[in-house]
Amino acid sequence: MTKLAYRFSDPSLAQLALTHRSAGRPNNERMEFLGDALLGVVVAELLYEAHPNASEGEMSRLRAQLVNGQALAVLARELELGDELKLGSGELKSGGFRRDSILADAFEALVAAVYLDAGFDACRAVVRSLFEPLVAAIPRSSKDAKTRLQELLQARGWPLPQYDLIDSHGEDHAKTFDVSCEINEPAQVRAEGRGTSRRAAEQDAAETVLRRLQELNS
Amino acid sequence: MTKLAYRFSDPSLAQLALTHRSAGRPNNERMEFLGDALLGVVVAELLYEAHPNASEGEMSRLRAQLVNGQALAVLARELELGDELKLGSGELKSGGFRRDSILADAFEALVAAVYLDAGFDACRAVVRSLFEPLVAAIPRSSKDAKTRLQELLQARGWPLPQYDLIDSHGEDHAKTFDVSCEINEPAQVRAEGRGTSRRAAEQDAAETVLRRLQELNS
Repeated sequence: MTKLAYRFSDPSLAQLALTHRSAGRPNNERMEFLGDALLGVVVAELLYEAHPNASEGEMSRLRAQLVNGQALAVLARELELGDELKLGSGELKSGGFRRDSILADAFEALVAAVYLDAGFDACRAVVRSLFEPLVAAIPRSSKDAKTRLQELLQARGWPLPQYDLIDSHGEDHAKTFDVSCEINEPAQVRAEGRGTSRRAAEQDAAETVLRRLQELNS
Repeated sequence: MTKLAYRFSDPSLAQLALTHRSAGRPNNERMEFLGDALLGVVVAELLYEAHPNASEGEMSRLRAQLVNGQALAVLARELELGDELKLGSGELKSGGFRRDSILADAFEALVAAVYLDAGFDACRAVVRSLFEPLVAAIPRSSKDAKTRLQELLQARGWPLPQYDLIDSHGEDHAKTFDVSCEINEPAQVRAEGRGTSRRAAEQDAAETVLRRLQELNS
């Protein structure tokens, strides 16, 4: 645990975090559940601070880029967690200490172990120190959702999206617009958006279409 | 905000949390992202404490029961958030203050507002006071995953699952078992499980099958 910027008061928590289920019980599976939630909130806060203009959808997308099995395995390797994993003999022989999923799970469990050892602020500090450089490296996409969708479709030679006004309601000074955005390639996707201007509603709808496209790819 | 067991130092945070996007910008959408993550971690911790024998899969399932749009709307109504929502005139006329999704979003945003106002411990205390009774009301399912899966299938007259040993490895005193669990009704679902006994591996596989069935239903 030399590479982690944290010293455990109770080292047995760190040991449990590094015990894979192949080594029997107790193991790190329950801690992983808690660690995943803790990572979720600390990275959410980092994005909330660093991207004050990002929509909820954009922040979700960015977080999914930063917190996923592959990305966490990279961090686990930087912390050299593989050397300290406790694995069953089968996993040991088949090289489980090198496997992304096992490393990512141990990383999540370790985040929970810090929380259980010393509370939220300690856990937050550890997670922030690891993720701050990654959040800072995200290009500040000044491109709005409509532009990103258009560029994505154009890059592949697909037809541009069609935006339609569905409805607008409210008094003149406080109108709400409902708009649809529809694409036919690479799949038929249609989403509705809402906003206080037609343009804002279109951005909202385009954001949803972008997210669905990403889900189709994942 | 009289019903919430918390007094804001900065009341503008509470106001923002209760501002729906139909009322323009800034609104509560970004706070909702942070609040969702905060609820996730505080409820995860409650379940971690209250169900020391629950697997990761069971805790996920229980959390999804407690933290979803409908459940959060119930809490929002108990806190009478509907009366304090700031909505655009369209939503106001169409009764948006009664809609589950709008209420649930405001509740999530309010959780984030407490965090931004006073930090994690204050936020945790507010969320725990609301969720502790709900967590305590969960029947402590002493039924294991194999039993629950069997009962679910029997209740609908579907065939029982088939468990097969795929592999076992490791030395005698530290063996690991890989087992598959397969069902054909209501859909063909097959999952593999692993454990330090054949029975534990079967429980693990059954848990995954139960989760997939739940995903099919949701």
